[in-house]
Amino acid sequence: MKNCIFIGVAGGSGSGKTTVAHNLVKAFSEEDAVLVEQDAYYKELLHLTVDERALTNFDHPNAIEFELMRQHLNDLKNDITIERPTYDFKTHSRSGENMLLKPSRIVIVEGILIFAVKEIRDLFDVKIFVDTDADEMLLRRIERDIKERGRSFDSVKKQYLNTVKPMYLEFCEPSKRYADLIIPRGGENKIAISMIIAKLKRYLQKDVVESV
Amino acid sequence: MKNCIFIGVAGGSGSGKTTVAHNLVKAFSEEDAVLVEQDAYYKELLHLTVDERALTNFDHPNAIEFELMRQHLNDLKNDITIERPTYDFKTHSRSGENMLLKPSRIVIVEGILIFAVKEIRDLFDVKIFVDTDADEMLLRRIERDIKERGRSFDSVKKQYLNTVKPMYLEFCEPSKRYADLIIPRGGENKIAISMIIAKLKRYLQKDVVESV
Repeated sequence: MKNCIFIGVAGGSGSGKTTVAHNLVKAFSEEDAVLVEQDAYYKELLHLTVDERALTNFDHPNAIEFELMRQHLNDLKNDITIERPTYDFKTHSRSGENMLLKPSRIVIVEGILIFAVKEIRDLFDVKIFVDTDADEMLLRRIERDIKERGRSFDSVKKQYLNTVKPMYLEFCEPSKRYADLIIPRGGENKIAISMIIAKLKRYLQKDVVESV
Repeated sequence: MKNCIFIGVAGGSGSGKTTVAHNLVKAFSEEDAVLVEQDAYYKELLHLTVDERALTNFDHPNAIEFELMRQHLNDLKNDITIERPTYDFKTHSRSGENMLLKPSRIVIVEGILIFAVKEIRDLFDVKIFVDTDADEMLLRRIERDIKERGRSFDSVKKQYLNTVKPMYLEFCEPSKRYADLIIPRGGENKIAISMIIAKLKRYLQKDVVESV
């Protein structure tokens, strides 16, 4: 698809980037906008024992199959429908039920590390970083992991200090430098989200790609 | 004017906020957008000796007549034309040649401290902070002060360390917290500027104030 625009939405775990990305997609019809999530591209860990899987650093770029993700994004750019994998976080494997994602004028990509990896970063026309205070990101993460994933506070704390925080500081936070736009306070920030939507609606109205 | 939108553009000296503000205003007709600059509201220092004036901290909120600025912004909101003072930086006094600024649907306000002062900050519908690295802001400031204002490097250095930097850290930088949108790299950032323009164009197309 010649006339398509690639929007990247990055930010730390609990920053609200997923809410921002969903609010963007929701503003358009299914034909006009598609969402691609980095989380779908976690590598399968079937070759590891259950104990080994638990020791995996899920916040390091090596945990993600970025090469497949890049190929899929290029396919969308070239007007090719992709079969996005579906990841099962319980078994750390792909469920096999791929989701068909069709090319569309607006492609929104969401994930912690999408600006940290040059091959992915270079695909974006617009790079948005959702910047939320570390304490508020942590609060959301604790709430999600305890309430929705049934984990103990101690296990959340251990993972946070061992991998989540160091990987955020090493890979995600420095990639903020590449952003065209920084959105503070994440999903609640209706003003910032409405500006991006306004830009994309203007984009859809044009027959040719305008300089963004 | 009932249907008007107030956009604040803040950032440090040399951040590029003036370029951003001018690029926003330029995208609209004179009837639709007006620019109000904090620099026009510097207090007169005629009661001080030349030596005393040189010792003034021009980067502290007390150097600005924010009460007059607030009144002017409220006048614009209430559909009243204002007589904006014109400040002469050489004599540290108002030239007496006021500039008539007419109310318009879009009011853009630009200045280092406009988010640091609550009475001004609370007037904005959209708060934009132009965030540029400290070293790049300094480079622009040195260049401007030496080339355009004929000052020596030593005097620029002294003022930077004595007031510019400490006041930035005390007042301007913390006010970034109130921003709805953070623009990295200042005036060069065409993508971010085009988003704000898109939002404002959509705003002008509406007959009633939309929720921003």
